[in-house]
Amino acid sequence: MAEFDFINKYFHRGKTPDQVMLDKGDDCALIAPSIGCALAVTTDTLVCGTHFLPDIHPHALAYRALATNISDLAAMGALPKWFSLAICLPKDLTDTESWLDKFSQGLFQLADKHNIYLIGGDTTSGPLSITITAMGEVEPTKALTRSAAQVGDRIFASGNLGGAAGALDFLLAKSTPINSDIETSLLQYFNYPEPQVELGLLLAGKANAAIDISDGLLADLSHILKASNVAASVDLDLLPIDDNLIKQFGLKKAQMLAATGGDDYQLCFTVPDEQVSLVKKLSSQARIQIKEIGIVKQGRGLEIFSEGEAVNIDQKGYQHFA
Amino acid sequence: MAEFDFINKYFHRGKTPDQVMLDKGDDCALIAPSIGCALAVTTDTLVCGTHFLPDIHPHALAYRALATNISDLAAMGALPKWFSLAICLPKDLTDTESWLDKFSQGLFQLADKHNIYLIGGDTTSGPLSITITAMGEVEPTKALTRSAAQVGDRIFASGNLGGAAGALDFLLAKSTPINSDIETSLLQYFNYPEPQVELGLLLAGKANAAIDISDGLLADLSHILKASNVAASVDLDLLPIDDNLIKQFGLKKAQMLAATGGDDYQLCFTVPDEQVSLVKKLSSQARIQIKEIGIVKQGRGLEIFSEGEAVNIDQKGYQHFA
Repeated sequence: MAEFDFINKYFHRGKTPDQVMLDKGDDCALIAPSIGCALAVTTDTLVCGTHFLPDIHPHALAYRALATNISDLAAMGALPKWFSLAICLPKDLTDTESWLDKFSQGLFQLADKHNIYLIGGDTTSGPLSITITAMGEVEPTKALTRSAAQVGDRIFASGNLGGAAGALDFLLAKSTPINSDIETSLLQYFNYPEPQVELGLLLAGKANAAIDISDGLLADLSHILKASNVAASVDLDLLPIDDNLIKQFGLKKAQMLAATGGDDYQLCFTVPDEQVSLVKKLSSQARIQIKEIGIVKQGRGLEIFSEGEAVNIDQKGYQHFA
Repeated sequence: MAEFDFINKYFHRGKTPDQVMLDKGDDCALIAPSIGCALAVTTDTLVCGTHFLPDIHPHALAYRALATNISDLAAMGALPKWFSLAICLPKDLTDTESWLDKFSQGLFQLADKHNIYLIGGDTTSGPLSITITAMGEVEPTKALTRSAAQVGDRIFASGNLGGAAGALDFLLAKSTPINSDIETSLLQYFNYPEPQVELGLLLAGKANAAIDISDGLLADLSHILKASNVAASVDLDLLPIDDNLIKQFGLKKAQMLAATGGDDYQLCFTVPDEQVSLVKKLSSQARIQIKEIGIVKQGRGLEIFSEGEAVNIDQKGYQHFA
């Protein structure tokens, strides 16, 4: 199939939005940015064998590839608008048409949900990988950056943490699900992460710093602390965790997965004291789960507490201090 | 090396431009588009084994990966502004640091020439590939599209054609260079294509349609004809060809390479009659080589002439009609 037919069949969908002045099929797309907004731009690649296993369902792969990018827009408080898709496909796929059909369904399931429009991209032959560049818009003064955390800010996490890491444990056959409900529910976190766009928009102009949790809560919070030149303490016992994760792994391992597991694509953000009640109220009204888990302090580094005691966590888990 | 150190060492360079409100290192870059301009966005991927050979020098790879993207901006008449870079690197590179050092030198050699700024990207492990999304700005009424060719427009090509295809013949060991000067000069076309930014800016608002020559002159011109619902005739004997290509391959094969070889990244564009002398004069003043090679006509399809006779060209070359 020629590239143009291929794009029309699988990747052209719906009416061209007003701000897209020239659509797919020319040398470039042309878009008309909104006046007064900054353009937020992010790029994420998923590579077979590094970010997903070869047997991933193409529907989930497309969803996740776009979700990781939209999540970065959410973490800036930006409204998702446009994206480009570079897809590298092996020549020896058993059924390329069926694969692309499922892939495009997964892609547009999420794109339509967030009203983000595919403006173009590239299709090439080679080892399976997906690179998406997503663009959104945000008023510059309201953008949520990593470097804006202030001493005294309350630290929050959205949603539940550790679910994707739990699913990865199954996928890598390190553990076996104790029942199929648990398997299904945890795999959902890994395959279909929900970028927190609505929360990001709600926080824009109210929270100070934000980041999306892709490397793991503690690692990503540390990025905020380093960029903001502040310290923090976090209470492990406050981390929001799905009951199924606890049933499967027990509380201690579930906490460890929630603290260090990546791929959740929830937001970690810091809110100045005077905005806390408003942010809680707005989140509650929007039925978005957020949980206060710690506080920003002067200094450097991240202190972690559990059951009132300082604990030390590394990649392999955590131990109580002697 | 941690990702942040890696970015700082190899990919952060120079002062952040005024329009870049937030640079590399946050969830997104934030940029302030110019008021009154459309944002031109393009994405191109180069995959090892598909678009380049495994032994390509990283300096040339970076240069070519960025050049293919800037070339798309040039074909719209857009001014290059920002780009993101997704780089997928094998873990078993013999010397990753040295590879990256050369890669970043090649990248910034071209980026600095066109004042295009790296705003972010992603680095992953896996089979070698490079995906760049480049952004530029153009006044919407001046943008050069594929669909704007008009009957009577003169068809032009810039630079010399076929050099990259000639070099590929060497690289694939289909032919042997007759001397090292010829080898060097043709390899330059393949490894270091020069995106025609200055020409694109000069043509914006004056030419009607434009495309960059990546698939081959005839294939790319056909994209213009199809998008514009017009026909054209082209004279093979007018194609601009480097003398070295003719010395190496003879006139007939050189013409075939110029007509069908890809990867030249020159522009093919159509100019209304009343703008032809101005476009020629401005190009001459800017010392940019352009050559009139044909004319846009009513109907469908592309007629090709050589020595006054219609010829038929397919992928394998061309034959005189019986």
